[in-house]
Amino acid sequence: MASRDALEFPESDRGFLEPQLPPQDGSTPRPDMPFTTLTFATSLDSSLAISPGTRTVLSGPQSKAMTHYLRSRHDGILIGVGTALADDPGLNCRLTGVGGYGKEGLEGQPRPIVIDPSARWDFSDDSKLFQLCRQGRGLAPWIVTSLPEPPAQKKEKLEQYGGRFLQLKMVTLDDGQHRIDCVMIEGGAQVINSLLEPQSMSLIDRVIVTIAPTWLGQGGVVVSPPRRFDGEGNAISAARLKNVRWYPFGEDVVLCGQVRI
Amino acid sequence: MASRDALEFPESDRGFLEPQLPPQDGSTPRPDMPFTTLTFATSLDSSLAISPGTRTVLSGPQSKAMTHYLRSRHDGILIGVGTALADDPGLNCRLTGVGGYGKEGLEGQPRPIVIDPSARWDFSDDSKLFQLCRQGRGLAPWIVTSLPEPPAQKKEKLEQYGGRFLQLKMVTLDDGQHRIDCVMIEGGAQVINSLLEPQSMSLIDRVIVTIAPTWLGQGGVVVSPPRRFDGEGNAISAARLKNVRWYPFGEDVVLCGQVRI
Repeated sequence: MASRDALEFPESDRGFLEPQLPPQDGSTPRPDMPFTTLTFATSLDSSLAISPGTRTVLSGPQSKAMTHYLRSRHDGILIGVGTALADDPGLNCRLTGVGGYGKEGLEGQPRPIVIDPSARWDFSDDSKLFQLCRQGRGLAPWIVTSLPEPPAQKKEKLEQYGGRFLQLKMVTLDDGQHRIDCVMIEGGAQVINSLLEPQSMSLIDRVIVTIAPTWLGQGGVVVSPPRRFDGEGNAISAARLKNVRWYPFGEDVVLCGQVRI
Repeated sequence: MASRDALEFPESDRGFLEPQLPPQDGSTPRPDMPFTTLTFATSLDSSLAISPGTRTVLSGPQSKAMTHYLRSRHDGILIGVGTALADDPGLNCRLTGVGGYGKEGLEGQPRPIVIDPSARWDFSDDSKLFQLCRQGRGLAPWIVTSLPEPPAQKKEKLEQYGGRFLQLKMVTLDDGQHRIDCVMIEGGAQVINSLLEPQSMSLIDRVIVTIAPTWLGQGGVVVSPPRRFDGEGNAISAARLKNVRWYPFGEDVVLCGQVRI
């Protein structure tokens, strides 16, 4: 089951990430809440992509392998529907040695979770995610929606692959069989910017940002949270990190930290 | 002449910068052109300041000392008039051991150069730059204008301090007495963004950017060059760096590189 597109992330590069990762005993910092890692790659001008609806490869091969290593260390990967529509992402883990990449089964494969309140994502058998399912290289997605009745055809297709719709009001409940202890949030801009707002930043346990030495230029899809004001109406920093670590990594730099609440 | 506000930049931190700095023999990479360093500090969302016309302290004490060390290694510091108006900057070098900070004279003090095409900068004796001149802690500025006759009163005041107006058409000429071998361009956004455009990026020899682990939020003063398109009208990266080095530095990271032409 060797795979041409499997990725290597050497042991020597893993050390710096270890203190940033979810505890391997499944414990979480907040009761009944998963350990949450917010991770994404930007340009120097904080763009995720050169224009809305496009996919831009920003970071180098080492950072890419790191992302797949991070995926192997989380139970779930969460994205917004905008990213599902723009990127047709695979959201699996291609690290050598996980299920589908050198190992039987799907061990080490994270659960893709797509936030899609109005069930806009028009997935099909050809969607990359479902192709990977058929090949035994990834788990079927969970789609979080606020519709009480998701479209029947979509539901059928999704369940056929082993995925399911989660209705928003059930999200904090769980059937116990598919508990998610740690989730990695990969974007896109709308999800990231809203998580960096004051009312939600306490949900994030770690931030891991890869920055590439490129300016994409004006008009990109930008990570920049809504501005904040102090009691006197003066603009203040929207969000700051603490316990900051920077790791130069090939041409890129990886920034790890925790949001200051 | 000990000074309470003098800064220390330890030898141990200087090594990483050395390959990025102007050659100390005064040689320049391009004949008759100064060695040009573009340097600035941004937030993670590429903002220089939280709102137009305000000054935002972004980087930590180590990065601040680095900026003053960089100033000691350049003959001139160039800013746009917007920065002069917003910040009332000192633009001197406060490194221990340069003229005015532990040494007689003004050795090691860079020449402030303000790009002010229509002579908008309404400086006075109270402007920080002129205060520093009177205290023997900085050189008087050169103001680059496109007016054939700068306002007489401003000209008189400026020359009284030892500064002068340079008219744009004379900029490439020089009287030989005040040759600038290396210039450090500190901003603001308008100057930086226009230098990162294709027609001017070849003027930049080095880029040194300090990034602080903070998102200032939407509405900041953003470094992001105008977008570029390839021959087929597709958006492409506006500017990329090569020979990239990242240096974690306190809570910040310092990025050094050269613009790919």
